[in-house]
Amino acid sequence: MERVTADYYIETPYPLEKAAATLAGEQSSGTFVSVPGETEELKTRFAARVEAIEELDTVDRPSIPSEKLSFDSYRRAKVRVSWSIENFGYNLPTMVSTLQGNLYELTQFTGLKLMDIEVPDSFRSQYRGPAFGVEGCRKLTGAYDRPLIGTIIKPSVGLSPSDTADLVKVLVEAGIDFIKDDELLSSSANSPFAERVSAIMAVINEHAERTGKKIMYAFNVSDEMDQMMRNYDAVVEAGGTCAMISLNSVGLAGAKKICDLGQLAIHGHRNGWGMMNRHPLLGIEFPAYQKLWRLAGVDQIHVNGIANKFWESDDSVTRSMEACSKPLLGGYSVLPVVSSGQWGGQAFETYRRVPTVDLLYMAGGGIMAHPGGPSGGVKALQQAWLAAVGGQSLEEAAKAYPEFGASVEKFGGKLG
Amino acid sequence: MERVTADYYIETPYPLEKAAATLAGEQSSGTFVSVPGETEELKTRFAARVEAIEELDTVDRPSIPSEKLSFDSYRRAKVRVSWSIENFGYNLPTMVSTLQGNLYELTQFTGLKLMDIEVPDSFRSQYRGPAFGVEGCRKLTGAYDRPLIGTIIKPSVGLSPSDTADLVKVLVEAGIDFIKDDELLSSSANSPFAERVSAIMAVINEHAERTGKKIMYAFNVSDEMDQMMRNYDAVVEAGGTCAMISLNSVGLAGAKKICDLGQLAIHGHRNGWGMMNRHPLLGIEFPAYQKLWRLAGVDQIHVNGIANKFWESDDSVTRSMEACSKPLLGGYSVLPVVSSGQWGGQAFETYRRVPTVDLLYMAGGGIMAHPGGPSGGVKALQQAWLAAVGGQSLEEAAKAYPEFGASVEKFGGKLG
Repeated sequence: MERVTADYYIETPYPLEKAAATLAGEQSSGTFVSVPGETEELKTRFAARVEAIEELDTVDRPSIPSEKLSFDSYRRAKVRVSWSIENFGYNLPTMVSTLQGNLYELTQFTGLKLMDIEVPDSFRSQYRGPAFGVEGCRKLTGAYDRPLIGTIIKPSVGLSPSDTADLVKVLVEAGIDFIKDDELLSSSANSPFAERVSAIMAVINEHAERTGKKIMYAFNVSDEMDQMMRNYDAVVEAGGTCAMISLNSVGLAGAKKICDLGQLAIHGHRNGWGMMNRHPLLGIEFPAYQKLWRLAGVDQIHVNGIANKFWESDDSVTRSMEACSKPLLGGYSVLPVVSSGQWGGQAFETYRRVPTVDLLYMAGGGIMAHPGGPSGGVKALQQAWLAAVGGQSLEEAAKAYPEFGASVEKFGGKLG
Repeated sequence: MERVTADYYIETPYPLEKAAATLAGEQSSGTFVSVPGETEELKTRFAARVEAIEELDTVDRPSIPSEKLSFDSYRRAKVRVSWSIENFGYNLPTMVSTLQGNLYELTQFTGLKLMDIEVPDSFRSQYRGPAFGVEGCRKLTGAYDRPLIGTIIKPSVGLSPSDTADLVKVLVEAGIDFIKDDELLSSSANSPFAERVSAIMAVINEHAERTGKKIMYAFNVSDEMDQMMRNYDAVVEAGGTCAMISLNSVGLAGAKKICDLGQLAIHGHRNGWGMMNRHPLLGIEFPAYQKLWRLAGVDQIHVNGIANKFWESDDSVTRSMEACSKPLLGGYSVLPVVSSGQWGGQAFETYRRVPTVDLLYMAGGGIMAHPGGPSGGVKALQQAWLAAVGGQSLEEAAKAYPEFGASVEKFGGKLG
């Protein structure tokens, strides 16, 4: 029988075999006294199995403080556990409850993080996955052989639909591929969702008719279920190509329902992610996280960026980008969204670490505040990537391309 | 204009005013360079406001390790921030993105936890909240003036529908009020959801016709959206009164959609909660968490139990129970679900800490493994609560009530 496998990074003061067995028991049988009906046959069929334990270092204080434990040393290890697909079938929420449920509550652990998951081949026939993925997003925007260049409307909240449409007009004419709402804005007092869609799509459609290029705008449809469906329909009706969802705030069931509609590329925003990932020994790592959302059908997912303004290290960002670039069950293509404090200067290190142009490269101030205006900003980003892919250094590119040179002069200090 | 308020517990090496201003800025304006269109008027209307800062202790190492910060001391504080309701309207997912979004990513903090939230009065006209609450759950089960007594089917996964129905029959005849699926079981290879509902409801309906008492069974409907709706309908059609949702795995949009249906009491399981709460300075505290789910319409919510088998302290469980007992906007009644290693002995300390009988008191092994069988187990729990409310001590109750006395003999060691 096919099995789903999960890799955990754990910390425990107890013998590793015993702690791992507790985890497996809690997540498949789960009681402190044996009960009638729990036969050996049932246990063999439905019990979670500890597949491997790899001992790592030992530390003298727990990673997460615990009132109920006081020991001199705490062992760390990688533990692999598997479950039969018979336990939950094809049901992503219940799979999540199995892989990420009460196990975080176990007193036996002073640290526990879900690092990666493997799902069996039969998921391919149950989950369509991203309806567009990398190739679909390229087709929708007409941007090939280079990163899609994108930006975020700022200020996050406060502009009226017509203010926003004016800004979109500037950006569209500057040659951008992609624009998105901020995750803080869905429908605000002075920017009702439907009015914003209508004002923005008028600009985008007019530009598309004139030039043949339709800019992708990710409207933040995130809302309660029925309103989210209405928001989605409004985007489709206006000729839009993309909807954004705050994945963690909307949740897996709601997000998958939206992805299943299949008419718009889905831009997955991971705000709230720090809560689940920031501690090195609590929560979930991105390689596991992104697989859940690819199965649900998200086409684009945020990975932060190199030299970003947030807490995340470049190595962690690299791992996230690599995770997106690996096929899942042979496909389920997803476009990583690189953002946070980006201005083009990071293209070189980004490409050195993950040599691909299959990404959506987002800059905010890096475009809007460029000395040559937004048009100069977009050009500078395209030049940076052309140079990075061509093997030029940042310094060489700054000399070769005037717009990128101006970026280096204005934003270069931020890379120090 | 009405405002939503959030209280955070933060840790930062920077001056508190500066760190708080960064949080407020990121969650309402959010860019590193000023952009055209961001007028003072817009800022005043839409900017998040730091309402109060209360400095607490200073520590010499960060609560969450940070590669990007190296300081000698880190200040802790309570910070209150508010947003105009104009920013996101009545949209729980986008409110969550605002209160719990990118702020966890900010390098400026080495710890950040959302402690509580306050929503304005107008939410009352937008959110119906729990359709049943405490009184509704009492009416559905006919259990008044004492805690509802409940149990969980174990083993969690593996029993067939008819095995489960047999167990339900024993429990129903033992005088229980409430039974639930485990969160690991929705539909398994040998217990398809619809078949389980049908087998179990046959037992419950027969008992109800005969005795007038309908036991509440919380079927775990958690699944992807369409299947979850079908699961819900199957419970309604079979005459069931309750559906269980794994709140974190299903997510806010999906869970609210199910609550909105309003025909079944919704049992909210918080598996995955440890990931969001276990670290003292990361994530969200229960007083904030439970308000979101009450607004969404959850009727029953897990709070763990006193002397539980998990990591959580009794003080934290007490705070959670107290949070449930406080009216939200004058109502939104929710039934706290007390569970984990309970057998009746904890009734005394539970009632001493939170003197109310408005709770669902769950025991697993504590009922099934009672020396007098499940019927003795249920009686023992009722006796424990009768004695606790009547001011008797555990020792007095053990002498006064034979079934509870047998519990103390069998499980008493677990209280040491």
